Amino acid sequence: MSRVHCDHPPLKARRLGLFTHDQAVVIMRTDCPACHSAGLSSRSHVQVYAGDRSIYAELLQIDSELLELDTIGMSQTAWDLLGVEEGDEVEVSHPPALTSLSHIRSRIYGNRFDYEGISAIIDDVVARRYTDVHLAAFLTASATPPLDTQETIYLTKAMIGAGERLDWNKDIVLDKHCVGGLPGNRTTPLVVAIVTAHGLTMPKTSSRAITSPAGTADTMETMTPVDLELDKLKKVVREQGGCMAWGGAVQLSPADDVFIRIERDLDIDTEGQLVASVLSKKVAAGSTHVVIDIPIGPTAKVRSIEAADQLSELLTTVGKEFGLTVACVYTDGTQPVGKGIGPALEALDVLAVLRNEENAPQDLRERAAVLAGLALEIGGVAAKGEGTALALQTIANGRAWEKFRDICIAQGGLNIPEVGDHVYTVTAPFDGVVSNIDNRNLARVAKLAGAPRSTGAGIYMDVRLGDPVKKGQSLFKVYAGAPGELAYAVEFSEQAETLVDIQPV
Amino acid sequence: MSRVHCDHPPLKARRLGLFTHDQAVVIMRTDCPACHSAGLSSRSHVQVYAGDRSIYAELLQIDSELLELDTIGMSQTAWDLLGVEEGDEVEVSHPPALTSLSHIRSRIYGNRFDYEGISAIIDDVVARRYTDVHLAAFLTASATPPLDTQETIYLTKAMIGAGERLDWNKDIVLDKHCVGGLPGNRTTPLVVAIVTAHGLTMPKTSSRAITSPAGTADTMETMTPVDLELDKLKKVVREQGGCMAWGGAVQLSPADDVFIRIERDLDIDTEGQLVASVLSKKVAAGSTHVVIDIPIGPTAKVRSIEAADQLSELLTTVGKEFGLTVACVYTDGTQPVGKGIGPALEALDVLAVLRNEENAPQDLRERAAVLAGLALEIGGVAAKGEGTALALQTIANGRAWEKFRDICIAQGGLNIPEVGDHVYTVTAPFDGVVSNIDNRNLARVAKLAGAPRSTGAGIYMDVRLGDPVKKGQSLFKVYAGAPGELAYAVEFSEQAETLVDIQPV
Repeated sequence: MSRVHCDHPPLKARRLGLFTHDQAVVIMRTDCPACHSAGLSSRSHVQVYAGDRSIYAELLQIDSELLELDTIGMSQTAWDLLGVEEGDEVEVSHPPALTSLSHIRSRIYGNRFDYEGISAIIDDVVARRYTDVHLAAFLTASATPPLDTQETIYLTKAMIGAGERLDWNKDIVLDKHCVGGLPGNRTTPLVVAIVTAHGLTMPKTSSRAITSPAGTADTMETMTPVDLELDKLKKVVREQGGCMAWGGAVQLSPADDVFIRIERDLDIDTEGQLVASVLSKKVAAGSTHVVIDIPIGPTAKVRSIEAADQLSELLTTVGKEFGLTVACVYTDGTQPVGKGIGPALEALDVLAVLRNEENAPQDLRERAAVLAGLALEIGGVAAKGEGTALALQTIANGRAWEKFRDICIAQGGLNIPEVGDHVYTVTAPFDGVVSNIDNRNLARVAKLAGAPRSTGAGIYMDVRLGDPVKKGQSLFKVYAGAPGELAYAVEFSEQAETLVDIQPV
Repeated sequence: MSRVHCDHPPLKARRLGLFTHDQAVVIMRTDCPACHSAGLSSRSHVQVYAGDRSIYAELLQIDSELLELDTIGMSQTAWDLLGVEEGDEVEVSHPPALTSLSHIRSRIYGNRFDYEGISAIIDDVVARRYTDVHLAAFLTASATPPLDTQETIYLTKAMIGAGERLDWNKDIVLDKHCVGGLPGNRTTPLVVAIVTAHGLTMPKTSSRAITSPAGTADTMETMTPVDLELDKLKKVVREQGGCMAWGGAVQLSPADDVFIRIERDLDIDTEGQLVASVLSKKVAAGSTHVVIDIPIGPTAKVRSIEAADQLSELLTTVGKEFGLTVACVYTDGTQPVGKGIGPALEALDVLAVLRNEENAPQDLRERAAVLAGLALEIGGVAAKGEGTALALQTIANGRAWEKFRDICIAQGGLNIPEVGDHVYTVTAPFDGVVSNIDNRNLARVAKLAGAPRSTGAGIYMDVRLGDPVKKGQSLFKVYAGAPGELAYAVEFSEQAETLVDIQPV
């Protein structure tokens, strides 16, 4: 569809400083000549042109004097994508039809996606042509029925194709991932430090949280800059053998970063979408081997060995299509790993392990060692069966901490994070034993307290499963950056049916 | 979840005149104390309180001086729902958790809706607690797999329960509906005029367009006010026996009016959703008998007798649950009915039939007579098999026109609509015979021209299937209210693979 020229003068761009996430939004007067001539109405979509750039945006209309008749107010995303300056001339027209929607409709009506269809959808998503309505429909339609193996391969391929793809020119490029669902499972920074301390390559990019209180990128960001541009990331990896960066900043599988906000809003995160999300990032990052941690437990994301087998099979099959060797490790998913839940609180756990502090969480240290050990074996640094011991030794002798500091400094500096100012302690109502820990509800409390957005917010666990407790003893503390959030989280924790349950003795 | 009190002063309400449809939007400064204290971020959701009223709204944040630090900018929907005046004190907090989303997730993961779940969803929808993301997920999840009969009954029941329900205290209250997909099929105003001219009761409420260029309410609105409040509607029906009103204004099945915008955006309109939408309005309107017109054709909404049988069966079964007798009539859906497509153009067809004008579309007259005839038979005014003849006579003798005028005047006046100022004539490229008319693409052209929003926009057909045409002769005219829209519609019509096809002879 070519650009339709209209007989009205161009509009003047005006920065509103309005924050709307990925979606570009523009605001025009209801009575402006451009709206009238093109017959534009509020919440319709428009193509906005400035010089040789053009963006797709949602139009809101306003009838008050807040905006001049000849100006177009632009949200920050619209402003940045279009690259305009205050007062620049801008033209607006109807956007080209979103033909990729027909593939979503086709799946809604019971057909499967083909590669052409998924690829057209991902192109539109990455070009920010999909509104919230379209994104939610795509993700929902992709979940019912679940994507099959072939569709997952197509989705992965389309997501890889839509962004940058790195090549490290090495035979073995390692990576790791945890499928999540377990609060505080922050092994990544430890694994990267251990593996790269032995000269192996591990250009680790991580996601922000989808439905959890913190993603690895959120946690790392409390200690060092993670939004490294591509050249910077390459430089860090060349120098250090690895990095701990946010994947979104380097445009590896950029569609994934758009989906995350909607998935979080709907609290859905299905198998095919999960596999495509994980593997597209790994392939785009140039990895050849990936170790995947699958915690299993009744309130973890994967709830049974059968479900883990099914996920593992799909990960392995899809990985193979892209020359990526996948090694899955099943771990205990019955309770949080470490003591902190939330970006800063988890970062403090990581630092405690690296610095061999007395109160460092044992479980986090051991789990990281198992995963790093497998990577050391794949990388040929440790003999089969001896990786874990080597990994533990690398922590104990301080080499991992030294390497961690070097990588952070290469990324832009090391910061020791601080927890939220507002604290509430949840105590045992009577004497007993900790009989159950509900990961989902704990995560919920941490999120209500403000995590991951409020980096110091979250939970610090004072007990573990099976611990004996006395009435009035602290079970966990809730941290928040604002009193309203603390109140909200505490209110929920007091109403929750299960959280940290005590069996009287 | 109780209201969380914060230690910041209340905000002052400010009307922005910002149009955002059903969704209430509020704008606050990134650095305002309320945002900071409650830890609110852009595109999160908030509960806004003023006096004893409260609304759920989407929050956008702004970092510029457009808004004072102590004010909260409100979209028109937020302003109207909250009922505030400029400068009124407003408080903001985190909203209660949207627990009904769990029912959507459950269906995404392969379960069916139960009544409790659907009812909780509809309550949240009607209270405007669902964002576009939630609405799109619900509609998509409801379409894959299609709602079964039991789910459709639950949805219908929940939609009826969420709004007003009328009772006319009569044994027979008639209604009619057309399942659509056929441009210009504007029989409703004719049927209401004929049926009520014989003293029967037909309190007709209609929808606006979902995916078509005009709904009956859009067409009627070009001639008379259709957004009648409940008391006004009752008064019109008491006096005239019938009305031709927009269902949305009287809050009959209000959830339906929220869904329409999203369905239009996604261009999906599935069977269960359709049946619940149609029947919830009929039951809520107090109808006992409904005549349903199902046009069948390769480019109509229903494409085969089998599909019509299936839809008819579902309509009848679900209707019976609510004491509503459904009579389906299958009609020709191979080409548009009447000559106009678009609100004003269809209204002019209706007026031509009522006024027995020479160029009045025969097909529209006859179809309306068949449907009205069946209603006259159900109502006991005509013997079985004699309804159509009586209906045709009621048009010919001017009684239908007289009744139509009376109803319009009772609703607030009769207006003769005007078509758009900008016209383009599409002509035959060579001599031949009209061999095919693509309803979907014609509807698309009318929509691109601005219908139904731009009431004078649309198409006027100059030929019908089988007509011989000469090169250069007009096939149809495109009308638009703005040059940009005309250009857009013409561009599409020139690129469309099929539209009005000519077979050379």
